[in-house]
Amino acid sequence: MPTDALPYADRLDRLRTHVRERGAEVAVLTPGPDVEYLLGHSVASHERLSCLVVPIAGSATLLVPQLERLGWAGTAAEDTVRIDTWLDGQDAYALVAALLPAGTARIAVGDHMPAGHALHLRDAVPGSELSLAGEAVAALRVQKSDAEIEELAAAGAAIDRVQERIGDWLRPGRTEHEIAADIAAAIREEGHQRADFVIVGSGPNGASPHHEASDRVVQAGDVVVIDIGGPHRGGYFSDCTRTYQVAGEPDPEFAAVYDVVQRAQQAGVDAAVVGAPCESVDAAARQVIVDAGYGEYFITRTGHGIGLEVHEEPYMVAGNPRPLAPGMAFSVEPGIYLPGRFGIRIEDIVVATENGPRRVNNCTRDLTVV
Amino acid sequence: MPTDALPYADRLDRLRTHVRERGAEVAVLTPGPDVEYLLGHSVASHERLSCLVVPIAGSATLLVPQLERLGWAGTAAEDTVRIDTWLDGQDAYALVAALLPAGTARIAVGDHMPAGHALHLRDAVPGSELSLAGEAVAALRVQKSDAEIEELAAAGAAIDRVQERIGDWLRPGRTEHEIAADIAAAIREEGHQRADFVIVGSGPNGASPHHEASDRVVQAGDVVVIDIGGPHRGGYFSDCTRTYQVAGEPDPEFAAVYDVVQRAQQAGVDAAVVGAPCESVDAAARQVIVDAGYGEYFITRTGHGIGLEVHEEPYMVAGNPRPLAPGMAFSVEPGIYLPGRFGIRIEDIVVATENGPRRVNNCTRDLTVV
Repeated sequence: MPTDALPYADRLDRLRTHVRERGAEVAVLTPGPDVEYLLGHSVASHERLSCLVVPIAGSATLLVPQLERLGWAGTAAEDTVRIDTWLDGQDAYALVAALLPAGTARIAVGDHMPAGHALHLRDAVPGSELSLAGEAVAALRVQKSDAEIEELAAAGAAIDRVQERIGDWLRPGRTEHEIAADIAAAIREEGHQRADFVIVGSGPNGASPHHEASDRVVQAGDVVVIDIGGPHRGGYFSDCTRTYQVAGEPDPEFAAVYDVVQRAQQAGVDAAVVGAPCESVDAAARQVIVDAGYGEYFITRTGHGIGLEVHEEPYMVAGNPRPLAPGMAFSVEPGIYLPGRFGIRIEDIVVATENGPRRVNNCTRDLTVV
Repeated sequence: MPTDALPYADRLDRLRTHVRERGAEVAVLTPGPDVEYLLGHSVASHERLSCLVVPIAGSATLLVPQLERLGWAGTAAEDTVRIDTWLDGQDAYALVAALLPAGTARIAVGDHMPAGHALHLRDAVPGSELSLAGEAVAALRVQKSDAEIEELAAAGAAIDRVQERIGDWLRPGRTEHEIAADIAAAIREEGHQRADFVIVGSGPNGASPHHEASDRVVQAGDVVVIDIGGPHRGGYFSDCTRTYQVAGEPDPEFAAVYDVVQRAQQAGVDAAVVGAPCESVDAAARQVIVDAGYGEYFITRTGHGIGLEVHEEPYMVAGNPRPLAPGMAFSVEPGIYLPGRFGIRIEDIVVATENGPRRVNNCTRDLTVV
């Protein structure tokens, strides 16, 4: 795509507006998804300071250690911002301070910035106070463009193809680790940069929502939660959960609880209309589970935003009044977790649109015995 | 090992002393190496707040999201601290604030804590100011116990065995990525939890110290930097660099520059005696390279501490006057980077002892053609 079609200069300008509106004079962001969004590229950063400095008036500068400079060669960052370097032994925080407008009193730092960098920067700018840039950046990132939604849809289709092959790997007598390794390979084969998470929660392990995988051997009749995803080739994440029974006839209690979760998930998706507050998506899904008598076993929020991060704004959680706007993308993933027995979770990524909620995951949500 | 032999309660007590000496009333640390050191366990943490709260007087509390609570089951943390949980929808920062002694004015946060958590915590405690806990934690972590040194030695021996097999994989006609994948598998086979970094810098790519691997096809005669490591089974890191020539007779210029780097590395190791300032290790290695006329091509510090993190205190860098003490463990890794041509780096992990510097890497440092 020609340089003049790249969105990065525009994104920086819009960021300046949001930072100014929140009372800060400069945003300082360390590498990660915020920088990837703003410059189209990021690099792994270690203890040496790398940061993007965006004054609300004036040009932006990317400051990087000289030995990481080549990691930015040939990227859009070179056309979008000035790139300065520093050497081991120099005081990088003083170099950032020198980039700030005279008299800077309020520095908005990225929410992901390590506190070590943030407080050293504060101390390098006498009289300054720190605030968070998170809301200003989220104001941009939370509403996906059409191009970003297509990236999420491609990621969703790719992870759906992995779920559809789950019976190839999820079989009695295999350990969760063995199953997870096969799934991870399939995730990569389907165009992901990596398998970011592969939850195989069999039997009682499924009752811990963030259990990953263990040496437990899957048994015939087990209920198994499969929650998988990662960054697809464009950098946008997939995230899809299905719950299966392994072999045999569906256990009647499993089928009954599954039905509750399936109806709750549908209710959450149905509630995800433009203008509705995020907390109403949570409430809609939760009500179904409460009405069925399982309220105390739904121990998580209903969903999280997704994009260049697997968890980002907006969160579908009690107490979040933010209204849904077109282009917001998030998970709807209610669950019921019965300690010592099993867990059930069904998760799709949903985009709010003027035409109603659009799921990017479309593999079957019906009870499946593999 | 029996519970009464575990070091964690003692480590917490010593942390309290260091935090008090630095003028703070409480340390708050998010999961990661600091918490792993203090509790013998940590868990991957996402946007939900998990933190260890250590008042300088009074008992310590680990606050975790309820859905991550099972990740701590059966660990020493259960015997060492109180574990509280919170649910989605609750204000986790207010819960931390309620754990702090009345009138807390100075909160020391871990250097790795995301700024989002740190500033939300600051705002939840009216009148509080943040400082960094990094120095207090480093005061403990920087001097390794005998048991920790044996962990580093085991990690070093494991990565040496991988370097000794490098000729199995580093051959003309293969891409850096292919070579790196084989090395990564060998790193895991040798008892590492994962291959944290696999740098294969062939030809001009070796001139970028943090180049990882690419689709470049290795040519006969190439100079190739191999910098590899990861957390060994006990959690302590390996990190070892060797530079090889691929096939043919040693190029005379390569051999001459290699000799400079090898002598610089030996000088750095020889300078790593108890009582010497960290910067003198850097100076000793650097002087050899400057004297040979390559000073401008040695663009990094000489070394970094290592333990539960691959980069931690103490840093062997100009401007660091910290004296070496027994049990400090760090890399000595001078290099010469010739842009567009090749790079050469030789790296060992060294432990300062009363009997002089002890290398934990012992694979050959002599010029090797594979």
